[in-house]
Amino acid sequence: MRRHITGFSNPTVKHLRSLRDRKHRRRAGEFLVEGLRLLEDARSSGRVPRLLVMAEEREPHELLARLEREVEAAGGEIVTTTPDILSKITGKANPQGVAGVFAEWDTRLDRLERSVAPIWLVAQELRDPGNLGTMLRTGDAVGAGGLILVGDCADPFSAEAVRASMGAVFTQQVARASWEEFIGWLRAGEGQLVAASLREAVPYRGADYRSPCFLLVGNESRGLPEDYEAECDLRVTMPMRGRADSLNAAVAGAVLAYEALAALEG
Amino acid sequence: MRRHITGFSNPTVKHLRSLRDRKHRRRAGEFLVEGLRLLEDARSSGRVPRLLVMAEEREPHELLARLEREVEAAGGEIVTTTPDILSKITGKANPQGVAGVFAEWDTRLDRLERSVAPIWLVAQELRDPGNLGTMLRTGDAVGAGGLILVGDCADPFSAEAVRASMGAVFTQQVARASWEEFIGWLRAGEGQLVAASLREAVPYRGADYRSPCFLLVGNESRGLPEDYEAECDLRVTMPMRGRADSLNAAVAGAVLAYEALAALEG
Repeated sequence: MRRHITGFSNPTVKHLRSLRDRKHRRRAGEFLVEGLRLLEDARSSGRVPRLLVMAEEREPHELLARLEREVEAAGGEIVTTTPDILSKITGKANPQGVAGVFAEWDTRLDRLERSVAPIWLVAQELRDPGNLGTMLRTGDAVGAGGLILVGDCADPFSAEAVRASMGAVFTQQVARASWEEFIGWLRAGEGQLVAASLREAVPYRGADYRSPCFLLVGNESRGLPEDYEAECDLRVTMPMRGRADSLNAAVAGAVLAYEALAALEG
Repeated sequence: MRRHITGFSNPTVKHLRSLRDRKHRRRAGEFLVEGLRLLEDARSSGRVPRLLVMAEEREPHELLARLEREVEAAGGEIVTTTPDILSKITGKANPQGVAGVFAEWDTRLDRLERSVAPIWLVAQELRDPGNLGTMLRTGDAVGAGGLILVGDCADPFSAEAVRASMGAVFTQQVARASWEEFIGWLRAGEGQLVAASLREAVPYRGADYRSPCFLLVGNESRGLPEDYEAECDLRVTMPMRGRADSLNAAVAGAVLAYEALAALEG
């Protein structure tokens, strides 16, 4: 179905705009992705938007034409509108000319098949959506199975997380759980829980990583609670040669993930 | 000197507010840092603000009292104001109650003493201030000498970069240069230039890193220009097991930096 919208007060415009807000995303069960590059990442991962919204005057583009065909074939909607309204929807002065609405997918832990990958990333109360997206991107790079979000984390379907993931939100598995749910699930099968720690830890380099290896990164400000660290099978420490005693959460996860990858691939 | 300001249109308020803008920072040669924690990081690194601005009603705090004394001893100014005006200055709904104005310091390349550290980070056209701050923070952690910003990079004195650096902007050396200036300076002394690359590269693990080692990270979207890569003494490649062929710039820099640290420390 194709529609053209010219009014700022159109209900579709209001709805799309509301998806910038986490509460509205959750209620609608959908999220907005801006820009042809991310939409193409989604498409190549088998995710087709329910609705495509684009500026009426735009350059013809082969990838966009294919995307339009796929949206229509899947029974989705294509909306054309003015650049001003597209700005209003995306909240950007210069939006990229096209955005898509996707249904959020199931993020329950019991959907994960832990044996498919040697490495999984686990984030505890990770609040920064940019860090969350960066961890998804790193997960893709190290061939991780996915990212498990424990406790009150940023929303993986926020525009900032999707953008920072560079499309990895479409390829990496994402699960959300409480700490108790996560530990229950983890201990019901194989899996080594590893944390970067300052307490009773061995050097991260050459540590005894085992597959499937779950690399746990704590909250940006407070790090991991002591009892969460105590639950870990392996605590590792990274050199800290400077004044500070911690790294950016996404950086710490990446340094650990590359070390585990090297260890597990021998 | 102490002053109390109650008017939104006060010239000091306007000036402080203008420091959120890069152009005004550059013209004034000063920048604004918000929050007692960062101000304390600065103080412990020997950087005392020219001016301290704080909400009139605040909890007494020993660190803040010490900071006030140091500012006054150095001939600086202390301004008290309303929470609303502090919000206006910092651009935040809930500012942290105190902010300080610092003189920007000299960022010329020829001030760097390359022999003081085995590792230096170099960023080419790094546009994201969060990435820039994260690289400073990583630099602190690996004991790097500092961060060299090549070409048109984000401003290391922006609020976002300072915050992401977690205070490392006060301890790490920062230099800014064109590519030609940087290469001229580098080749006038000892130093190995290393880049992460997809072209003709050796595995990053176990590569022949040499001190002082300059780790070059390219622009977030375009990566390094081919001729910049060609100038490097060592090109290394990191495993990419997923769909994408790159990492977040600050993550790539950190994984390389920890590898180089392990190699150089034996």
